[in-house]
Amino acid sequence: MNPADLRIVEVGPRDGLQNLSAFVATDRKTDLIRRLAACGIREIQTGAFVNPRAIPQFRDMKDVLAGVRSLQNDGVVLTTLVPNLQGARDAVAAGVDKLDFFFSVSRSHNLNNVRQTPQESIAALRQVLDEFKSNRGLAIRVNLATVFGCPFEGYLETAVILKYVEKTARLGVREITLCDTVGWGYPSQVEAILKGCLAAFPEVVFGVHLHNTRGLGLANALKAWETGIRVFDSAIGGLGGCPFAPGASGNVATEDLVFLFQSMGVSTGIDLDMVLDTASFLQGILPDTPLTSSLFRAGPPRKVPFGTEEGGKSDCVS
Amino acid sequence: MNPADLRIVEVGPRDGLQNLSAFVATDRKTDLIRRLAACGIREIQTGAFVNPRAIPQFRDMKDVLAGVRSLQNDGVVLTTLVPNLQGARDAVAAGVDKLDFFFSVSRSHNLNNVRQTPQESIAALRQVLDEFKSNRGLAIRVNLATVFGCPFEGYLETAVILKYVEKTARLGVREITLCDTVGWGYPSQVEAILKGCLAAFPEVVFGVHLHNTRGLGLANALKAWETGIRVFDSAIGGLGGCPFAPGASGNVATEDLVFLFQSMGVSTGIDLDMVLDTASFLQGILPDTPLTSSLFRAGPPRKVPFGTEEGGKSDCVS
Repeated sequence: MNPADLRIVEVGPRDGLQNLSAFVATDRKTDLIRRLAACGIREIQTGAFVNPRAIPQFRDMKDVLAGVRSLQNDGVVLTTLVPNLQGARDAVAAGVDKLDFFFSVSRSHNLNNVRQTPQESIAALRQVLDEFKSNRGLAIRVNLATVFGCPFEGYLETAVILKYVEKTARLGVREITLCDTVGWGYPSQVEAILKGCLAAFPEVVFGVHLHNTRGLGLANALKAWETGIRVFDSAIGGLGGCPFAPGASGNVATEDLVFLFQSMGVSTGIDLDMVLDTASFLQGILPDTPLTSSLFRAGPPRKVPFGTEEGGKSDCVS
Repeated sequence: MNPADLRIVEVGPRDGLQNLSAFVATDRKTDLIRRLAACGIREIQTGAFVNPRAIPQFRDMKDVLAGVRSLQNDGVVLTTLVPNLQGARDAVAAGVDKLDFFFSVSRSHNLNNVRQTPQESIAALRQVLDEFKSNRGLAIRVNLATVFGCPFEGYLETAVILKYVEKTARLGVREITLCDTVGWGYPSQVEAILKGCLAAFPEVVFGVHLHNTRGLGLANALKAWETGIRVFDSAIGGLGGCPFAPGASGNVATEDLVFLFQSMGVSTGIDLDMVLDTASFLQGILPDTPLTSSLFRAGPPRKVPFGTEEGGKSDCVS
């Protein structure tokens, strides 16, 4: 990656769908992923290889990947989330380009989420790295959850976060994404944590995975961008609500993030209108799940003719 | 005002209510304003003195002000929006502390909105300033609409904005708020326009009035804060949608803005829990108008006990 380039990683097919109670049919998942790729998105998290009893939504991962694997011919990087060696094996067997290994830096959250301590997750990460070290075509990113706040432990000390970044980087991992899992992050904190990570680990490409639960998703993304981050996760339609905040916004929406960067003149390589069309498609699949994306509701800025009835409706006083 | 201090101006009773088709009863308006003051908000835009045929919601402004005027004894600054001399006279007669004069820097929008050109609005402003120049107890703020984008004219050149700021400042006005009327603003633009204004008019206290129509309200607020702005308008519950974007978010929500600043350690003097209670009260008044505030939906960050059923529900994977 050219370090000047922005990379937006679409996580909607995974983070957006994982908490939905209704199963989304395999061909709809593959259709969604194909449409996302057609928007110009170059890296897509297609789902997760986790226990299907824990998250039944992803019981069809093998079929989903079989259905979208041809996108790799167009240079689209297909990833899945994996919490352990078994997940990594399944993902590699299913043909992913990249593993998104994950664990929580909060002990309680990791125990709650994947039934192991962070230390045990790091041991699992080491197994994964060992097993696939000869597989040159396979990339590995590590996603650290609850970096910006944990529902059990509150805000973590930066030293704790840096400790897990160091343990991860020491294993040779060169891409780490810091996740605001429950949307507690705020700009000055995001800046402080990222500055600490960037200064201490210049060899690592850091990314952020932000949620908009409390409305600060784009403010945090802006601050991350200004701090030097160039890898941003987002989810089409802003799906991805957290069970701790039912009814709240989910992930930072892909269309909102693309709009932020485009408006500031930062090239994304992504077609915003096609992203909005894809959000409409997603809303059609999920009619009972109102999308929380701002741009999906408002549309991009658009001039209306002065003196027409459409214009005359306005009393936007100030 | 101590220039280091943040001032949040509540505009919900005006911008939040103005486009609602249903009339909100006078005693509910006064109740809302009293509750907002009890949160610690020190300046409240209580409504507008405009043609009641254009905005029937404000036909009871005199009664509203009569019902809340005692708040002035507690140091709460009561304002109303006025577009012309008649409105200013009515507002002063009704006992406001401060006039919020307004016009659009976009000619089309001002014609559409108040049926006069910006130049005619400036002439009206001069009349207002002349008429009340001996009234030492009366403050005047000028609100410039469509500074960050106009639905008829698109993005305006900074030179046009600076021209109207200059015309306003030359009349002796020392408080000017720049309004993102239709939510087209974006961070780098907000920064550029504000820097231009602050550099050229150091004698003026500038504020911003931001909408969250496209999700960038808080990112823009953050950028304005970093650029040196200390006066921020916001509306309880994020009310204030624009007719150009039906269903979209409205004004930056007071609770979201307070959360942003509190999280960064900036004292607001406002009780966030009471603001959220007030948003609940507002939602009770307006059951058919879903509030778009993120914090109202998600609640503030709150720890849950580990190992309980509440915690066990979680699969916020990353």
